[in-house]
Amino acid sequence: MTNQAESIRVGVLGARGRMGLEVCKAVDAAGDMELVAMLDQGDELFKASEAHAQVFVDFTTPDAVMDNLRWAVDQGISVVVGTTGFTDERLSQVREWLAAKPGVGVLVAPNFGLGAVLMMQFAARAARYFDSVEIIEQHHPRKLDAPSGTSTHTAHLIAQARAEAGLGPMPDATKEEVDGARGADIDGVRVHSVRAAGLVAHQEVLFGSLGETLTIRHDSLDRVSFMPGVLLGVRKILERPGLTVGLDSFLD
Amino acid sequence: MTNQAESIRVGVLGARGRMGLEVCKAVDAAGDMELVAMLDQGDELFKASEAHAQVFVDFTTPDAVMDNLRWAVDQGISVVVGTTGFTDERLSQVREWLAAKPGVGVLVAPNFGLGAVLMMQFAARAARYFDSVEIIEQHHPRKLDAPSGTSTHTAHLIAQARAEAGLGPMPDATKEEVDGARGADIDGVRVHSVRAAGLVAHQEVLFGSLGETLTIRHDSLDRVSFMPGVLLGVRKILERPGLTVGLDSFLD
Amino acid sequence: MTNQAESIRVGVLGARGRMGLEVCKAVDAAGDMELVAMLDQGDELFKASEAHAQVFVDFTTPDAVMDNLRWAVDQGISVVVGTTGFTDERLSQVREWLAAKPGVGVLVAPNFGLGAVLMMQFAARAARYFDSVEIIEQHHPRKLDAPSGTSTHTAHLIAQARAEAGLGPMPDATKEEVDGARGADIDGVRVHSVRAAGLVAHQEVLFGSLGETLTIRHDSLDRVSFMPGVLLGVRKILERPGLTVGLDSFLD
Amino acid sequence: MTNQAESIRVGVLGARGRMGLEVCKAVDAAGDMELVAMLDQGDELFKASEAHAQVFVDFTTPDAVMDNLRWAVDQGISVVVGTTGFTDERLSQVREWLAAKPGVGVLVAPNFGLGAVLMMQFAARAARYFDSVEIIEQHHPRKLDAPSGTSTHTAHLIAQARAEAGLGPMPDATKEEVDGARGADIDGVRVHSVRAAGLVAHQEVLFGSLGETLTIRHDSLDRVSFMPGVLLGVRKILERPGLTVGLDSFLD
Repeated sequence: MTNQAESIRVGVLGARGRMGLEVCKAVDAAGDMELVAMLDQGDELFKASEAHAQVFVDFTTPDAVMDNLRWAVDQGISVVVGTTGFTDERLSQVREWLAAKPGVGVLVAPNFGLGAVLMMQFAARAARYFDSVEIIEQHHPRKLDAPSGTSTHTAHLIAQARAEAGLGPMPDATKEEVDGARGADIDGVRVHSVRAAGLVAHQEVLFGSLGETLTIRHDSLDRVSFMPGVLLGVRKILERPGLTVGLDSFLD
Repeated sequence: MTNQAESIRVGVLGARGRMGLEVCKAVDAAGDMELVAMLDQGDELFKASEAHAQVFVDFTTPDAVMDNLRWAVDQGISVVVGTTGFTDERLSQVREWLAAKPGVGVLVAPNFGLGAVLMMQFAARAARYFDSVEIIEQHHPRKLDAPSGTSTHTAHLIAQARAEAGLGPMPDATKEEVDGARGADIDGVRVHSVRAAGLVAHQEVLFGSLGETLTIRHDSLDRVSFMPGVLLGVRKILERPGLTVGLDSFLD
Repeated sequence: MTNQAESIRVGVLGARGRMGLEVCKAVDAAGDMELVAMLDQGDELFKASEAHAQVFVDFTTPDAVMDNLRWAVDQGISVVVGTTGFTDERLSQVREWLAAKPGVGVLVAPNFGLGAVLMMQFAARAARYFDSVEIIEQHHPRKLDAPSGTSTHTAHLIAQARAEAGLGPMPDATKEEVDGARGADIDGVRVHSVRAAGLVAHQEVLFGSLGETLTIRHDSLDRVSFMPGVLLGVRKILERPGLTVGLDSFLD
Repeated sequence: MTNQAESIRVGVLGARGRMGLEVCKAVDAAGDMELVAMLDQGDELFKASEAHAQVFVDFTTPDAVMDNLRWAVDQGISVVVGTTGFTDERLSQVREWLAAKPGVGVLVAPNFGLGAVLMMQFAARAARYFDSVEIIEQHHPRKLDAPSGTSTHTAHLIAQARAEAGLGPMPDATKEEVDGARGADIDGVRVHSVRAAGLVAHQEVLFGSLGETLTIRHDSLDRVSFMPGVLLGVRKILERPGLTVGLDSFLD
């Protein structure tokens, strides 16, 4: 790729990890970006600033990310963060650092899959128009938690939308239930967790009213699917100073 | 319809009920059958024998069906039975009556939906070839029991096939589970019951091994879907003396 | 239902038709409406104005609907119209009538199914974020046209969204094609029309990018599913003077 | 793995290819097999016979496979073949070689995916019981042919089963069709080919009669899914002398 004047200069932190490596490939392949630094444990951050990085993408570890953020904000470098482990305290701390640097932006996103983000947006929007809604999430059998984080978050969004619309409990005449048949109750929304070999990561949100159903389904097969969301973050973060949580608000 | 020599002469018992009425219409529309009697509560059965019925279809009530069967078998009339409430005792009784009438056949079937019967056959056959299998059944919210009878029966068939093939428990690393998320455990097979407005009666059986899944899904929207199964029963019962339980064995 | 001060007083035109009858039942069952007139061919419209109807719902015929609209607008009665056959000329005419009656509103909607309307909104919104999109619509085999009107409309919306986002043609390496395999080309979007007994009216919009797919599916089983959309139209039309085309903009 | 007396001794031809490598891993991991030879271009076949291989698995090339087969049959080694390019002439040639070696077996299979094989078996079996059937196959956009080989084969099987059952053409009232909307006509069965980024290899067979549908769906995500079928072939080929075409008949 040629070094065009308009290219966004990107440094990747955690560049040797599985996600970081994908990010490097994706940035390198993007026509409007230039990969100027690939750093991992043991590398010095100032190499990235010497390379004039405008945006960092951080897929490191909960242990390392806060130091990275402090340094980057200090240097006036915006950051797109996919590293996990952000508590409210950490978010407050980042907000504080950013307050002192008005032009710098940080995006902290738990999920960079555009499909997943859209699924949640659509689910929240449809919720007020249907009598019933249930979630069926399906994952590989090595997953430790049930339901998945994404389905739990979707259920919260739906419950909130139903409450705001003044909808009561959903119709359900179940009298005799074998334990567990009706799924987990998350904020009044039933969530069913399927675990089977051959599955990767899938979620279906089923809405129903008399005579019709609307189903929103997301199938995620590969972490490469997160790259369009990461690139979207890189492109938009320069126009979004301050802290943004969730990729959601970057989708116009 | 003209009275062709080859037509099967059919009498319908419970002809004014919802299912009985559908059966009358279906028999009437079938090119190879003649509807010779439509009887319901208050009508005398001998009218059907006067009309030379060869086969009865019985969609009456648990209270009435045994008297109907005794009389029909006595008269040498074969019977296709959709009425519910057949215990092992009742089946033994019918077998006894039939023993004295070697040419007569009785079919007692809990489900005349060809799609449902095939789904169960396919599920039982696929079970030995996959590491994982789960069932998701979906019904209207007025349903009282969860899981459905059909899904419970399917789970039993699958469990039996897995045991015969020497398969152990399915892979499942779930450590943290919100109560109910992983569904009901029916003979070691997880069954998830979705209830939502807009649904009628649906079932999905999901098989999975590393890298692939096989899904068998049945959607039933209307009781008219049972008619091909009833007509199949009428056509075959004349060649199947004795008692048959389940439409299954009539599908060659 | 009691005649509450706050109830919206509704008159139904075409009340003996299949849709009209459903509308009458739905209005009657709605807690915030009062069914004050049920009119059909041969009935005089002034009966509805004598009954102080505030809103008309018109499910009549292309022959009758323009006269009904003229009269209603003249009387200051707002109208929710499900009758088909609206050309640009007819819409201009209605706009002209409404110009003289500033407080009156008319909603002309080709589809009152909230699920279908949401499916189209979501499809238009998701279109810019994915490399590929195809539509699979499935209907009963008595349908005369393929693809369906709804799928054609969805394809137009998607094509427009992709164009606005500057997306080029979708990836497709097909070299050898049996005629028709790749479906109909509607504005560059492939649409596949399935026709089978047992189906009613279904549509699936499949979006895909490397590593993930997002699917939006609508299943419509019964015309009763249009009633929530009709009632939404009745509730909102009093606050929406002028002409509105499509239920779309009534969903906030 | 220890060299148990009961282990099947397996040699893999084409061991450095993508499929061959997976086979080596699968054989190595199987408790009842021993991987005794891994050969590829440039290696001498006699090494495998020196290692006392009982079964070969051949994933080589159309150029190499016939020589491999001749040598193996000659040596009394049975072969499971996944290599493509088998014409009727080639199959006749193999049959001739086997005629001279009564104890040796060869399995030539175009598809080792158990899910795909079962899907086709189930489709052929269900075909006679439904009024309508259509096939929707979905693949990544780099695929060159439409419809896929598997869907074409499935359509042939369905058409044959319908003909044997005396079923006529399917109901279809389509009058106005945008070119291609109704898919490709393969032996009277409509096949729809969806191509989209994010897809891998999927097929859905939809059966329908009045009031119900039965859907059989296969999703293949990874070539690792062929391994259970290859291992099944290895286990059974020793009891199946002569030529077998298709994994189908090895599923009891």
